[in-house]
Amino acid sequence: MEKILAELLTIGDEILYGQIVDTNSQWMSVELDKVGFKVIRKTTVGDVESEILTALAEAEKRADIILITGGLGPTSDDLTKPLLAKYFNCELKINEEALQEVTEFFKSRGRELTEVNRQQAALPTACEKIANPNGTAPGMWFEKNDKVFMAMPGVPHEMKKMMTDSVIPRLKKTFDTPVIYHKMIRTIGLGESFLAEKISGWEKALPDHIKLAYLPGLGEVKLRLTSFGDSNEKLEQEVNDLTEKLKSHIGPFIFGYGEDSIEMVIGKTLREKKLTLSVAESCTGGYLSHLITSVPGSSDYFLGSMIPYSYEIKMQQLGVKPETLEKYGAVSEHTISEMASVVRARFNADIGVATSGIAGPGGATPDKPVGTVWIAYSDKYQTVTKKLQLSKDRMINIRMASVAVLNLIRLSLPGS
Amino acid sequence: MEKILAELLTIGDEILYGQIVDTNSQWMSVELDKVGFKVIRKTTVGDVESEILTALAEAEKRADIILITGGLGPTSDDLTKPLLAKYFNCELKINEEALQEVTEFFKSRGRELTEVNRQQAALPTACEKIANPNGTAPGMWFEKNDKVFMAMPGVPHEMKKMMTDSVIPRLKKTFDTPVIYHKMIRTIGLGESFLAEKISGWEKALPDHIKLAYLPGLGEVKLRLTSFGDSNEKLEQEVNDLTEKLKSHIGPFIFGYGEDSIEMVIGKTLREKKLTLSVAESCTGGYLSHLITSVPGSSDYFLGSMIPYSYEIKMQQLGVKPETLEKYGAVSEHTISEMASVVRARFNADIGVATSGIAGPGGATPDKPVGTVWIAYSDKYQTVTKKLQLSKDRMINIRMASVAVLNLIRLSLPGS
Repeated sequence: MEKILAELLTIGDEILYGQIVDTNSQWMSVELDKVGFKVIRKTTVGDVESEILTALAEAEKRADIILITGGLGPTSDDLTKPLLAKYFNCELKINEEALQEVTEFFKSRGRELTEVNRQQAALPTACEKIANPNGTAPGMWFEKNDKVFMAMPGVPHEMKKMMTDSVIPRLKKTFDTPVIYHKMIRTIGLGESFLAEKISGWEKALPDHIKLAYLPGLGEVKLRLTSFGDSNEKLEQEVNDLTEKLKSHIGPFIFGYGEDSIEMVIGKTLREKKLTLSVAESCTGGYLSHLITSVPGSSDYFLGSMIPYSYEIKMQQLGVKPETLEKYGAVSEHTISEMASVVRARFNADIGVATSGIAGPGGATPDKPVGTVWIAYSDKYQTVTKKLQLSKDRMINIRMASVAVLNLIRLSLPGS
Repeated sequence: MEKILAELLTIGDEILYGQIVDTNSQWMSVELDKVGFKVIRKTTVGDVESEILTALAEAEKRADIILITGGLGPTSDDLTKPLLAKYFNCELKINEEALQEVTEFFKSRGRELTEVNRQQAALPTACEKIANPNGTAPGMWFEKNDKVFMAMPGVPHEMKKMMTDSVIPRLKKTFDTPVIYHKMIRTIGLGESFLAEKISGWEKALPDHIKLAYLPGLGEVKLRLTSFGDSNEKLEQEVNDLTEKLKSHIGPFIFGYGEDSIEMVIGKTLREKKLTLSVAESCTGGYLSHLITSVPGSSDYFLGSMIPYSYEIKMQQLGVKPETLEKYGAVSEHTISEMASVVRARFNADIGVATSGIAGPGGATPDKPVGTVWIAYSDKYQTVTKKLQLSKDRMINIRMASVAVLNLIRLSLPGS
């Protein structure tokens, strides 16, 4: 089956000059890929009439769908709207529905509509308006010789809402795309190449209409299964069966699916099991607690942390025994084990976890190079410790040690 | 003066499909802009022969400099090298110097050179090799009809090293660019539009050869001055004089220059003044401590933190008086003031800071909506409190409250 081809056109000097990073086009690529369209090119041009018109004409030759973002603001350097009118040989005219929407938008925020704002409701007569629930610049949908041109604002949350609510459903309908079913399987604790080795037999046996992609990140690897067919139900069943088989190879490394993050997954488990968590983090310096508290509602299970960065605070505030620190040092199995159990006791929590290590670049000793990190988990049944040998990069070490603790919680929780 | 035009060409399916975000091209844009080249277009194409060749030919028509990244790996889907040989009508041949470099690279890591690795040293005969100190794929420099084509690996730290060490200096020499002097002025505590208003007179008086750009971020606004001329010394003097004048308008909001971050700036001051810092953070959940400890060497002045997320921990561990919490609530001026002074006393630190608020989405009350945050600073001379009304977004509130505390430290330190 021939794929429908898409091209992304981003308009704006601020991206060409590097003043902002274009994250829109990556997000759009993923969404288009999910529903079976193939992105063949991304182009960024500045706020220059001739550049924009040329880019439009080039894209029309190559692609079936041309998705344009940016240049829809109310100021004079925003050229997308007048140039689309020119390209489609029509005029700009106030769209009554759009005018009503922009008026309401301002009214709901207690602001008056200025003439500049009013002009946001002017649209090329050749287009259909696409609603922008999160902003004032409407989207535009053009059709020409079986090709679709769509223009959207560059503001990410406006564009995303428009894509999800209107553009993707309508593109699927217009181009009669095949049924596609996706499943994202999230793994932690095993590098990409080791993972690939463990599942190579399973991967080779995948049928032709199901594709596997590896998406590695810092401390985790996502596996995305994409299946093509006629029936969503059938595909879902097939992909779920394959996932069950996958579990027999790498079960313990799978922590979640779809948009689950490891901090969300352990949060959910802690809430369900009515368990509380406390943290004593040294080398991770607050980042572990930040991951835990980045989850809305984490106050249901997270009681708090101690960050005993200095030697004295480890003893005086956290309560690690001076003998332990003296005999074994701060970065040791004995100290980390004590840190986890002491914070648990002090905070009267069900679980205590701890980190201590050499994040770098300073602080290394011959037997404890940069990247040496001890982590620990403690509950009323057990205390588990683990030594990590990470990288030379401070920020990578902080991130990877924090994620490793979250994974240790997942694997050590009572009943897991 | 006519600007030299540059075009960025990124090659790789993984970017088109959205598996990775292209951060390279933003970085390259900034570096090219700094030395006076004008980026007029960015293009991304997949690992497809015809697409790559077309994109090269199109770019050659538009730009003076074509900078290519990606597709230089050792596997069969990496097409850049054979296609550049084709485009420049020459053959691929092992480059002896490159072979030596790649051999040494592997040797230094205790690995044997495979035939696949050996092929990384094969280069189009029409190019000059550019060294890649951070990897195994060399860069390539082609010249054709006064235009320059440069190909670099897509791995960010390899590309950046190559750009900084070799490509930028050589481009400046090849195109005889004007002298450009930059100064980045970093401000905090005032939004972009208020800042613009305060400095509008100063901005209007800027001479034609000096440009100002506003680069707003979460909680800070960077001002970049770019000056063009013949003499670096003269430009530096002129820009420094202008900066001095700027200080008379917005002096208290300027916290640093260039690559300084607010956490680096307060860290430097604390080290110089030999002062120690302790933190009691509630609604920021560890992020404030993370910013402080993201600075290498922060253990010189940062003693540690308490994150009293629950009500009980605020009382039992941090030591806020139950009466204070009962009478005023956790999100109040009385409580925040006590949190900052108590953590300072407990940790025996010179300075204590604290945060408490409603990060959201839950936890709001009619008089304390989401985004209400109290922050405090305490030393032996004074305790300063401040109420912030931030956004509805949890992560934005966490980030902005943390940055606000760092700024409060900067403004409140003894002798500042």
